[in-house]
Amino acid sequence: MTPIDFIQHILPPNHTPVKTGYGQAPVNIALSKYWGKRDVALNLPTNGSLSISLPELGTETRLSWHETGPDKITLNNEEMAPEAPFVKRLSRFLNFFRPDANGGFDVETLNTVPTAAGLASSASGYAALVKALDDCFQWQLAPRELSLLARLGSGSASRSLYDGFALWHKGERADGLDSYAEKIDQTWPEFCIGLLEIDTSTKPIGSTQGMQQTVNHCELYQAWPEKAEQDLATIHRAILDKDFQTLGATAENNALAMHATMIATWPPILYWQPESVAAMHRVWQLRQEGVTVYFTMDAGPNLKLLFLETETPALMRALPEMKCLKPFA
Amino acid sequence: MTPIDFIQHILPPNHTPVKTGYGQAPVNIALSKYWGKRDVALNLPTNGSLSISLPELGTETRLSWHETGPDKITLNNEEMAPEAPFVKRLSRFLNFFRPDANGGFDVETLNTVPTAAGLASSASGYAALVKALDDCFQWQLAPRELSLLARLGSGSASRSLYDGFALWHKGERADGLDSYAEKIDQTWPEFCIGLLEIDTSTKPIGSTQGMQQTVNHCELYQAWPEKAEQDLATIHRAILDKDFQTLGATAENNALAMHATMIATWPPILYWQPESVAAMHRVWQLRQEGVTVYFTMDAGPNLKLLFLETETPALMRALPEMKCLKPFA
Repeated sequence: MTPIDFIQHILPPNHTPVKTGYGQAPVNIALSKYWGKRDVALNLPTNGSLSISLPELGTETRLSWHETGPDKITLNNEEMAPEAPFVKRLSRFLNFFRPDANGGFDVETLNTVPTAAGLASSASGYAALVKALDDCFQWQLAPRELSLLARLGSGSASRSLYDGFALWHKGERADGLDSYAEKIDQTWPEFCIGLLEIDTSTKPIGSTQGMQQTVNHCELYQAWPEKAEQDLATIHRAILDKDFQTLGATAENNALAMHATMIATWPPILYWQPESVAAMHRVWQLRQEGVTVYFTMDAGPNLKLLFLETETPALMRALPEMKCLKPFA
Repeated sequence: MTPIDFIQHILPPNHTPVKTGYGQAPVNIALSKYWGKRDVALNLPTNGSLSISLPELGTETRLSWHETGPDKITLNNEEMAPEAPFVKRLSRFLNFFRPDANGGFDVETLNTVPTAAGLASSASGYAALVKALDDCFQWQLAPRELSLLARLGSGSASRSLYDGFALWHKGERADGLDSYAEKIDQTWPEFCIGLLEIDTSTKPIGSTQGMQQTVNHCELYQAWPEKAEQDLATIHRAILDKDFQTLGATAENNALAMHATMIATWPPILYWQPESVAAMHRVWQLRQEGVTVYFTMDAGPNLKLLFLETETPALMRALPEMKCLKPFA
């Protein structure tokens, strides 16, 4: 199945923009990671993943259609050059929805998260975009369909349709129609995320290229998909049970195992900076001192700390530079 | 088979010390790593390994027998307390050779390498010790038998019996009699090792404990033994062909994959310090600039650079703190 067949399978027959569309979506942080695609064109993963959304960080997008001329993309109030990789990727995605080839979309995107710094702005970006498209075309799609569409733009965007915890099913079908995210029905007001920003400059290798290099050139990767599915099930259960220690330990181990597959790839992929390693040792030291804190890391050098509200004072003292976010506030 | 049966299988029947024994052995650096034991008592590995010895660094040991009293162990001219872990391990090993239970060995050891800092002083230490025992008892064992005995003290010591390149066969037998190291018949005068010492303090977790934690608590480890055997064969071939780039790339990937298995273990094992990561990025940058240099790392934070003599001036300029060693000088 091609992406265009896939989309025709999902979309209702109204192919004409009705109004200026608006969409907003949060950033999400995977507690059980997505690393590796079984189908690159359809963004189908080798394993399921599970995330928590951060409603305080994300993307807001306004979108309208004009009959002539190319797409016009504005990011954080700055118009982007047509040859920018960000614009080319977006326009390729918009091709799926274009009512005719001569017109263009006007896309105004506001990010409250640094672009391409491992904080997954593409996830909130493509989730907000499909919401804006849904609004613009008045499709009135269900979250599950929006998640399928967002997945085509960026795999992890499938999870940014929801607040709270979300689970992206790996799916079994070759056409990808069973590979979407769903909300996990749990509220955990004490749950905190602490951002330790090591370096917010652009990363050396994008995650799509990084993951495919790992799939193709890392012998240890063969054990990853099964481990990832096991971790996903463990974390899902821990969320339902509100068992924080199991959640934290499994999430940290899962993130480290994902980075391990990159490190064991040739040529090696190391997103870590010296400061990342210093921060890891610091977290382990705090844990030894009795603070219940774990970390996760994405395809970048930053750490995201996981802890419950009771540990906030100890952590703010130990790591004053940490930004504390409350997903359920 | 117990270690004592094993030893009786190897040793000639002369069980009485004849003279003061002397042994000397070099440090070795594995280009294809040993990580994981299939038999802990006999130090049998899950995979073969391949090393290069550094004749400039190593251990010299003098050993004599006295009829009464406990072992007396002197390390770098300092008498060690009987309860020191170093002494307990050494005395346990000497139990295999003790002519009677009431006497003790006098062991004087000089190391030109920091103890337990990832520079494998236990490898040169146990290799020098079995040579000193062989001299003391006048067994006149062949290198292969000395390698088998040294292996019982420390797995990687099996490789420190030789100058130049050595290959430790994994072996198949449950009794371990086919798990010894042999010299690889190749001289490569241009071959250089550059030591980048990050931190020579004692490591947080010893390699025996670290490897068994990995074997038991790392899902990615299941792919390691086969990868390690493949890397070993690739590096062996590259040595015979003097194909430096294949050797360097395979050795670096092998070391990173070993560290990846540790990183993916729970609880995590990370020997890297912030400075280790800074040095890795530096090596990769130098390689991008056209310098043919690779690195390997053992169970510690230090990097060991691999390069040919032609690159020495460029590397000494870029990394003036590097100690340059020539294994075939």
